[in-house]
Amino acid sequence: MTYTRELSCLRCAAVYPDPSLELVGRGCPACESGGVPSNVLPVYDLAGLGALPVADGEPGLFRYRSLLPLAADTPAVSLAEGSTPVVDLPAVAERLGVASVVVKDETRNPTWSYKDRLASVAVTKAVELGIDTVVVASTGNHGAAIAAYAARAGLRCVVLTVASVPSTMKTLMQAYGASVVALPEPRQRWTLMRQLVEKFGWLAMSGHADPPVGSNPYGVDGYKTIAYELVTQLAAPPDVVVVPTAYADGLVGIARGFADLVALGVLERSPRMVAAEPFGPLASAMASGSEVAGPVPYEPSVAFSTASPVGTYQGLSALRSTDGAAVAVPSDEVILAAQRELAASAGLYQEAASATAWPALAGQGSLGPAESVVVIGTSTGLKDVGATAATLPEVPVIEPTADALLAAIGS
Amino acid sequence: MTYTRELSCLRCAAVYPDPSLELVGRGCPACESGGVPSNVLPVYDLAGLGALPVADGEPGLFRYRSLLPLAADTPAVSLAEGSTPVVDLPAVAERLGVASVVVKDETRNPTWSYKDRLASVAVTKAVELGIDTVVVASTGNHGAAIAAYAARAGLRCVVLTVASVPSTMKTLMQAYGASVVALPEPRQRWTLMRQLVEKFGWLAMSGHADPPVGSNPYGVDGYKTIAYELVTQLAAPPDVVVVPTAYADGLVGIARGFADLVALGVLERSPRMVAAEPFGPLASAMASGSEVAGPVPYEPSVAFSTASPVGTYQGLSALRSTDGAAVAVPSDEVILAAQRELAASAGLYQEAASATAWPALAGQGSLGPAESVVVIGTSTGLKDVGATAATLPEVPVIEPTADALLAAIGS
Ligand SMILES: [Zn+2]
Ligand SMILES: [Zn+2]
Repeated sequence: MTYTRELSCLRCAAVYPDPSLELVGRGCPACESGGVPSNVLPVYDLAGLGALPVADGEPGLFRYRSLLPLAADTPAVSLAEGSTPVVDLPAVAERLGVASVVVKDETRNPTWSYKDRLASVAVTKAVELGIDTVVVASTGNHGAAIAAYAARAGLRCVVLTVASVPSTMKTLMQAYGASVVALPEPRQRWTLMRQLVEKFGWLAMSGHADPPVGSNPYGVDGYKTIAYELVTQLAAPPDVVVVPTAYADGLVGIARGFADLVALGVLERSPRMVAAEPFGPLASAMASGSEVAGPVPYEPSVAFSTASPVGTYQGLSALRSTDGAAVAVPSDEVILAAQRELAASAGLYQEAASATAWPALAGQGSLGPAESVVVIGTSTGLKDVGATAATLPEVPVIEPTADALLAAIGS
Repeated sequence: MTYTRELSCLRCAAVYPDPSLELVGRGCPACESGGVPSNVLPVYDLAGLGALPVADGEPGLFRYRSLLPLAADTPAVSLAEGSTPVVDLPAVAERLGVASVVVKDETRNPTWSYKDRLASVAVTKAVELGIDTVVVASTGNHGAAIAAYAARAGLRCVVLTVASVPSTMKTLMQAYGASVVALPEPRQRWTLMRQLVEKFGWLAMSGHADPPVGSNPYGVDGYKTIAYELVTQLAAPPDVVVVPTAYADGLVGIARGFADLVALGVLERSPRMVAAEPFGPLASAMASGSEVAGPVPYEPSVAFSTASPVGTYQGLSALRSTDGAAVAVPSDEVILAAQRELAASAGLYQEAASATAWPALAGQGSLGPAESVVVIGTSTGLKDVGATAATLPEVPVIEPTADALLAAIGS
């Protein structure tokens, strides 16, 4: 195994032993008391590997388990996640003046979002640690993924959400057997989660620091597998990777996967990471040089999965270390138009938060003509379908004649 | 190429040249005038192959393109469909007293249902034939898949539906840019479609015979790839395959795929095909020995994707030739309980129509202790999430205290 059984602070490099359950979702106590909370993430020793190790007999993303923060004998909690396809968009590449644009279609996961990568590793870790109850604060995708994997593992799952979450998301989380409750204010989810973790020993599947540090450190490294898959399935390594982002667990995990590939000698350099965010806390901090991302002004957004006024230190760190960028896409109109454009021109229907990637890509600064771009399609449009419906005409009821049909479709 | 460029009637073995556009969705004129309408399906010559041929450079299910009814030079219209995983359910296998039960998770397709296999081949065929508009009658999954692939190919798509279809399904079809209209009565969709096909030369992506024969013959053979994938990914070939069924396009295509594998010498025998249906037209005809399946009594069903009072000759033919069975599962309560059970125990949330597979499996007669079972999970529960929601409690809003949380979750 290459996992050293240590967690290290991204900011001050303090090292903590695994398990240090009080740090999961809270981050480094030293940096927290210094006013810049920072996540702690797993440490690996890749010396001597020299290539990407693959365990062919393992299910789902556990084929990369020697690069995941797990003991060698922990049984995988898998629903055959990962190994998602890339779909080529030559017309978009031509319009942007780059060599290629592909979507990594993460809707092709067990609960139809890329959070399944986080959930599979975080829930497997819960099993490794003998935990009986997992708890997660979520507006939907994250909670649904944790609920499904908890069901698969036979663990109890408690989801803390807010009343404004779309009913589809609430039903999905409940369908997997999770106990779902709403709190009056979003940030009350974090204070309650910390109580539950400290009082009952439940394992946090998302963060409970305020301001946030990011999610469960084991889960963050589940996203590393996206980088491993991309170098395997693309003809050339990507130059730019665009990720719809709030607390940047996905963006950070993917960047860490590329860093592994550089350390292994598989890649010469990491791609530039681009964060697409509804309000721009990361963009603001990137511009000012701050270590703290936000809060920035915000309002309700159609991209509710990523609509946060604050970002994380881990996100800033990944953007800076890869010469990346963050782009704010605050207009619901722009987001829904991008969602519609991708569906109607390419046959890919992604959730509104995912659709922020397209205007962010167009606005992220210079792209070279020889460059290749990967956009992470994070979740299905079915999860917030009501927002799309509000932009569409009613389906007309017509008489069964060719003339009536032609009149109805305007041709 | 192994495709002979002929279509053959399943019932009377009459052979027609490809293209014979007037037969697509209508079936064999000779059998129709004899009162037993029957689909015509592609003919292949597998002599001398001796193994399953795979074209590694092709996208999605076109890796099996030499066993699909396409010209060699037709460009694939693909969204990286297929290659869906199987998820093992050991607890279900133990309860049923069989060696193994797996779900072939077809929600992991581009529009989250197995209709993408039909759509990719049928739309590719439309491109091959130079068609500019495709038309489909659908309650959702089929229409969404055709709309997405038409978007990918740049074809116009017209969907004929009914007003009672859930709004999620209507929005999904419209999101892909299709023109969607509703007809007052379901069967009016077929008479209108026939007019459109005859008058404008549009290509039918679903059937327009009454009583029905099944779908677009090229699309039916897209489902053959499920059989090819299963023998590649399972340790042992399946003995029983359960398919949620109305007009049996999926069941027939899968059975044809297994028949190919027997002809190629890859398998010794085909598995028994089991149709799960809400009202039982196939079950009734299997019991009576009739060539005509239904109509049987029916009422609105939560399994709206497959809730048909009539079956097809092609479905009966596949069941009889594989020593299979059909099982009616008419109770909404039983179906929703099966849906909930799979989600909460295994982390797989399938649409209500798909959930009919489980009570059908339990009711299909004898299973041997050494047998292995595959259940086709046809589409995601997100598409008819409202039916699940009606069975669940409201998400409570609670105060942010551990005591309030424990009270709310009843522990
Ligand atoms: Zn620190
Ligand atoms: Zn005939």
